[in-house]
Amino acid sequence: MKAAVLFKVNEPLQVVDVELDPPKAGEVRVKMKAAGVCQSDWHMINGDWPTQLPLVPGHEAAGIVEEVGAGVTSVKAGDHVIFSFRPQCGQCRYCSAGRPVLCIGRNNSPGATLFDGTLRLKHQGTGLYQMARIGTFSEQVVVPAEMVVPIRKDMPWPQAALVGCCVATGVGAVTRHAKIEAGSTVLVIGCGGVGLNIVQGAALSGARKIIACDLLDRKLEIARKFGATDTINTTTEKVVDQIKALTGGLGVDYAFDAVSIDKTQALAIDAICPGGHAVTVGVPPITMRATYSPFAMVFGEKVVSGTFYGSVRPSVDFPVLVDHYMNKRLNLDGLISRTYKLGEINDGFKAMMAGEVARGVVVFD
Amino acid sequence: MKAAVLFKVNEPLQVVDVELDPPKAGEVRVKMKAAGVCQSDWHMINGDWPTQLPLVPGHEAAGIVEEVGAGVTSVKAGDHVIFSFRPQCGQCRYCSAGRPVLCIGRNNSPGATLFDGTLRLKHQGTGLYQMARIGTFSEQVVVPAEMVVPIRKDMPWPQAALVGCCVATGVGAVTRHAKIEAGSTVLVIGCGGVGLNIVQGAALSGARKIIACDLLDRKLEIARKFGATDTINTTTEKVVDQIKALTGGLGVDYAFDAVSIDKTQALAIDAICPGGHAVTVGVPPITMRATYSPFAMVFGEKVVSGTFYGSVRPSVDFPVLVDHYMNKRLNLDGLISRTYKLGEINDGFKAMMAGEVARGVVVFD
Repeated sequence: MKAAVLFKVNEPLQVVDVELDPPKAGEVRVKMKAAGVCQSDWHMINGDWPTQLPLVPGHEAAGIVEEVGAGVTSVKAGDHVIFSFRPQCGQCRYCSAGRPVLCIGRNNSPGATLFDGTLRLKHQGTGLYQMARIGTFSEQVVVPAEMVVPIRKDMPWPQAALVGCCVATGVGAVTRHAKIEAGSTVLVIGCGGVGLNIVQGAALSGARKIIACDLLDRKLEIARKFGATDTINTTTEKVVDQIKALTGGLGVDYAFDAVSIDKTQALAIDAICPGGHAVTVGVPPITMRATYSPFAMVFGEKVVSGTFYGSVRPSVDFPVLVDHYMNKRLNLDGLISRTYKLGEINDGFKAMMAGEVARGVVVFD
Repeated sequence: MKAAVLFKVNEPLQVVDVELDPPKAGEVRVKMKAAGVCQSDWHMINGDWPTQLPLVPGHEAAGIVEEVGAGVTSVKAGDHVIFSFRPQCGQCRYCSAGRPVLCIGRNNSPGATLFDGTLRLKHQGTGLYQMARIGTFSEQVVVPAEMVVPIRKDMPWPQAALVGCCVATGVGAVTRHAKIEAGSTVLVIGCGGVGLNIVQGAALSGARKIIACDLLDRKLEIARKFGATDTINTTTEKVVDQIKALTGGLGVDYAFDAVSIDKTQALAIDAICPGGHAVTVGVPPITMRATYSPFAMVFGEKVVSGTFYGSVRPSVDFPVLVDHYMNKRLNLDGLISRTYKLGEINDGFKAMMAGEVARGVVVFD
C-alpha cells in the first residue's frame, strides 16, 4: 500500500510504499476512498504550521472500516465513515458542553500520533506521523475510533470526504457557531472551499442577502451558483461603502472571514451593522495580529469571534450534512472541480494555490 | 436656578444662573434630586469627546417630574424618575428587537439638543447644550419624555441616580449582555464605579469565582466587599498566569474590561479560557486600537464583544435594578463615597481622577 509523505518542509510530497500495523484497543483501520486537498495541508507542507516529520498530510476524507480494535463499539467493519480531524474524549468540560471541537481530554500526547504516542504507519521501518492523528493521504490508516463517524452508504465518496472539513467548517460556521436567523444579511469574504460552504450555509439558513467577496471574478461567479445574491470584487474601491449601500446603510448582520488576514479581519469588523457579528473562520497565520477599535465595539455593540471546524459535533452533524446533500439542500457536486489519483497529489496543491479549483479530491481505488 | 456649565474645554465647570423654557410636546421638566459624577462627564470636560459648547454635563441622575408637555403619557407630574442617557424611539429595528441602546430612530438631530434641534436651558440669553440631551448638572432640566423612567417612590435619591449609568452599565454588562450562567468564572478589570457593578452583577448571577483587578490595593479591598472572591494587583508580574492558576489552568469564562485601554483589552482576551468571552464595557478613547491574534480566536473559539450602557432596556431594567437594591441584592450604598453640593462639583471630579472614590454624587435640595 502507498501513502503521500512529507519528508521535508517545502518539498513535494513523495508517494511511497508504506506498512501499517493493526489497530490497538480503541482504534480502527480504514481503507481510504476519497481525500480532499485543503489549504490546511498546504500550511503543513510549506512550514506555516510546525510539525513532526516524516508526516502523512490529509485530514478531509472518507473510507470504509476494515477492522476494529478491542473495545470499539461506535463503528464496525464495513461501515462507511467520514473522518473527523478533532478527537473528542466525551468527558471533558467542552465535550460535556456540546463543544467537542475544544476537547481538552486528549491533549496528553502530540497531535500527530495515536493517543498512546506511537505510530502505526511506517516507511522502510521509520514511523510516519499522521496529520491531526489521521493523515488521510494514505491508502489505509489506523486512527482512533472516535475520529470516524459512520454515515449512510448511499453517499458518494468524494462528496462524503468534503463533509469532513470544508463543508463542516463553512456550513457549521453559519449554522452551529453564528446560528444566524432566517432573514439575516450576510457577508462572506473569500470564495474558496470554505467560503463557498459559508455561502451555501447562509442560503440553507434563509439569509435574505448574501454578499460574496473575492479577488477573482471567476470565484465570484461560482459563489452565485452557491447562493450569493450579490458579489463584490475586493480589488475595487470602497468595499465597505458598497456593502453598506446593499444593506440600507447599516452594514451586514453577519460577516464571515474565510481568508483571515489582517485586511480581511478589518473588512469583516467594518462591514457589520451595530449589533452585528464578525466571525473568523479561516485559519490565520499563527503570528498575525489584527486590530480593532474598542470604541466602535462598545458603541456598536459589535461581536467578533472565532470558530474552529465550524463548531460542529462531528457525530451529530456529519450525518445531518450528508442528509442535506442527499436531499439536494447542499451543493457538494459543484465543489469538486477536479479529482486526482494519489500519485497526482502534488498537482492538486498546484491547482489549489493557483486558484483554479473550488476543491480537488484524491480518489482511491 | 443654577447649573454647572462647561464654557471651555479643559477649564473647571462654572456654576451659574440659568433660565429654562417650558417643555414642548413630548418633553418633560424634571427637578433634579441627585446626579452622579462619572468618567464620561470628564471625557467631555477634557475634550476627549468632541462636543458643542457651552454644555451642561451630567447624565447619571434622578429627580421628580414637575411638568409634562403635550402628548406625554409615560410619566406625570410627581413621578420619581431615573434619567436614561439614550433615547429610544420604540420603532426602529433596534428598539423593536429589544436593543434600545442601539436606537437609530433619533439620530436626525445633534446629540446635545432636544429632538427638534433646539435648546431649553439658557445662560444670559445663550442656549446651553445638554450632554446626551439631558445635562443633569442642573437644578432643573427639560428632556425628552422617553429619557426618564418612573420608579418606586421609596428609592433614595443618590442610589437612584447611580442606577442610570454605572449600575446599569456594570450590572447590565453581566446580566443583559454576557448573560453569564451561575457557576461561571469571571474576571473584572478596573474597580471604579462600573467595575464594582460588574463585580456585584457577577455575584448576583451566581458566579463561582470573581477575580477583580486594579492598580490600587484600596480599590481591590472595596471590590471584595462587592463580591470579588480573588483580587490581583495588575502592577504585579504575570497577571495572566495568576488568573490561570485560579481557574484550573484554563482561564476565566468571562472577562469584563471596565478600563478599555490597549493593555486591558489584551489582558481580557488572554485571560479567557477556550470558548470564553471577553467583554469591553468601559468607553475607550475614540482613536485607540487594540490588537488580537485571529489564530487564538479560531483555535480557542473566543468571543470578543462590546456592550454600551450594559445593553439595558431602561424602562424594563431600571425598575428591576431598583428592586434588587431595595431587596438588598445590590449594594448601592457602598458605591457612594462622597456627596457634594452643586457648587462643589469640581471637587467631585478631582476626587474621581485621584481614585479617591467609588462614586461621588451631587445632591440637590
